[in-house]
Amino acid sequence: MEVYLDHAATTPAKAEVVQAVVRALEREYGNPSSLHRKGVEVEKSIKAIRRSLAKALGCAEQELYFTSGGTEANNMAIRGIAEAYKRAGKHMITTKIEHPSVLNTFKELETKGYEVTYLDVDSRGFISLQELSQNIRTDTILVSIMMVNNEVGSIQPVAEAGKLIKQKNKQTLFHVDAIQAFGKLKLRLEDMQVDCLSISGHKIHAPKGIGALYIRKDTKIAPIITGGGQEMGLRVGTENVPGIYGLGAAVELIAKDQPLYIDRLVAAKQYFLSRLKESVDNTIILSPLETTFAPHIVAVSFTGVKSEVLLHSLEQEKVYVSSGSACSSKKKGFSHVLTAMKLKESVIDSTIRFSLSDITTTEELDYAIDKINKQVTLLRRIMKR
Amino acid sequence: MEVYLDHAATTPAKAEVVQAVVRALEREYGNPSSLHRKGVEVEKSIKAIRRSLAKALGCAEQELYFTSGGTEANNMAIRGIAEAYKRAGKHMITTKIEHPSVLNTFKELETKGYEVTYLDVDSRGFISLQELSQNIRTDTILVSIMMVNNEVGSIQPVAEAGKLIKQKNKQTLFHVDAIQAFGKLKLRLEDMQVDCLSISGHKIHAPKGIGALYIRKDTKIAPIITGGGQEMGLRVGTENVPGIYGLGAAVELIAKDQPLYIDRLVAAKQYFLSRLKESVDNTIILSPLETTFAPHIVAVSFTGVKSEVLLHSLEQEKVYVSSGSACSSKKKGFSHVLTAMKLKESVIDSTIRFSLSDITTTEELDYAIDKINKQVTLLRRIMKR
Repeated sequence: MEVYLDHAATTPAKAEVVQAVVRALEREYGNPSSLHRKGVEVEKSIKAIRRSLAKALGCAEQELYFTSGGTEANNMAIRGIAEAYKRAGKHMITTKIEHPSVLNTFKELETKGYEVTYLDVDSRGFISLQELSQNIRTDTILVSIMMVNNEVGSIQPVAEAGKLIKQKNKQTLFHVDAIQAFGKLKLRLEDMQVDCLSISGHKIHAPKGIGALYIRKDTKIAPIITGGGQEMGLRVGTENVPGIYGLGAAVELIAKDQPLYIDRLVAAKQYFLSRLKESVDNTIILSPLETTFAPHIVAVSFTGVKSEVLLHSLEQEKVYVSSGSACSSKKKGFSHVLTAMKLKESVIDSTIRFSLSDITTTEELDYAIDKINKQVTLLRRIMKR
Repeated sequence: MEVYLDHAATTPAKAEVVQAVVRALEREYGNPSSLHRKGVEVEKSIKAIRRSLAKALGCAEQELYFTSGGTEANNMAIRGIAEAYKRAGKHMITTKIEHPSVLNTFKELETKGYEVTYLDVDSRGFISLQELSQNIRTDTILVSIMMVNNEVGSIQPVAEAGKLIKQKNKQTLFHVDAIQAFGKLKLRLEDMQVDCLSISGHKIHAPKGIGALYIRKDTKIAPIITGGGQEMGLRVGTENVPGIYGLGAAVELIAKDQPLYIDRLVAAKQYFLSRLKESVDNTIILSPLETTFAPHIVAVSFTGVKSEVLLHSLEQEKVYVSSGSACSSKKKGFSHVLTAMKLKESVIDSTIRFSLSDITTTEELDYAIDKINKQVTLLRRIMKR
């Protein structure tokens, strides 16, 4: 048996997604910009996919732009707003627990004369709305807050944050990185005062290399890539049609069955946590079964066991998990998220992230628990020597 | 029968490409940044693909960066060099017949204080090396010249241009857009004084949404997208693994069979042109059968017939062709390439681009010639009334 519990890093494509991608590669291969039927049929399909994504998110189809992934969507929003609104102000706000594609983009903008405030989080991974409020100034052009943290799963109060931001400064734009949220929890743009929102395909069983950015009507964005007129000039280059088709298939599945998927995720997390508690002692659960935590992420500290060692021990058992996020897993040093949560070094150093999908089965979780128990016991025995 | 003669706009994926993409979607779906086996196996495959692409291009694997396509590769090179070398100078040179992803990027940089010289071309679509030489100054940081023009197929003397540029100013960097060249003609980086070179997947039967940029060792590029550390920090974001696998399969086919493909293309172009000459009168061939023109592009003016009308008439016959390039085909106005060649309005307005592939068959060409003859005769009769 092989048990993949790293779905927050990336997911396998579902059968419907594979079929859609193959259709784009083999049959509907025209260039959407071509004037003839082979192009027009693809253009129409992309339009239909944009419409269904818009419906799933609760926005207008004209407000959606396909990108090469979540990282580009985040860059496009942050760099695009920084450039387009620089005359209005150069202050921006984000949090200390954002994804590197957000954090490093703000760091880069700091070298170009922008001022960035990084909000703290508490020991459970939540920002303070009060701190946010206190930091909004007349020259604050952008606030960027992730909806679900990729390492611990804390869900930030983005709806409340949006309201608060607009109350304090109507001109301040609000970007939400919803890459770990889309498909995993209820997300309706019409209920939120959000100006830009990023999603990614490969976190929801669509292909890698595709994402989308919602840009609220009348929000200005300076494009980071220039060329032909695709995506209304905001994201040019021949469309990643296989990627868009694959994303479309994944979104259709979500639109049809999201409540079922969420129920499955919640049940899987509940089962995993309860089995973990009864099987392994001395654990610290960083992602409790609460409504303010995403249902697919389970970060657990195994006291006394180094996470990277456990990760590789579990790999030998064909159980695939993560220590921190995949994106920064190859960098030396501690997770910036767990550090911002001010956890003890020993906790940070022993934290494993399990991440589930609606395709995760009870059998897989049983197998994983068995191997976790075996390896943690083994490693603790070795460490004690 | 359906005859697709728009391969310069985009191509269907070959069977080997589809298989590779499906493997990435279904089985080798790990995140290359993950520390466990599911990630490591993908990382290794990407490394092998990078190596085979490097071998095909004649460069080192460390000099290749995967991008979301040709447009991003062109943007990354031009914007990246403009930013990284702005202290050395702000003058750049390109030609009037570049792809919009190059031209519009230079136009954008002009609004940011850069000065750009746009080289003329002659009536056959070639730049003058003398004019290039005269325009290289001490503050010229970049020259960008496309290898094969996408509308008429003229092959610019990039090897000679490279030599000349470096003779005039050792500091001037040279970018080549080889998107229409790769796979269609001999292209060895080791024989050329080129610092950056862009290629695209979907022009060579690989998927849309993937491309690559060669960046010569020690050339500085300021990244346009920031985030995790992928692609040595120059092109971050989770890799488009299905796209890279697909590109890898297409490159393998080229590495194995390029001479055969080129022979086929040359034979197909020869056959098409000779059949066209004997079947349809009053044509002007803009892409003659000469070694300075690419073997896959055949631009033809059908005197007295509006190209867009002919395009749609051929579409009714299931023959798919292009008027100008796909990327700008939806924009009003004349082709900037044919305009730069100073062709008569009547010629520009009646030019169709046929573009071939090594998969194009004689039967397809016979069918197309038959329909072209039929429709051109019909349209000329109508026009005369």
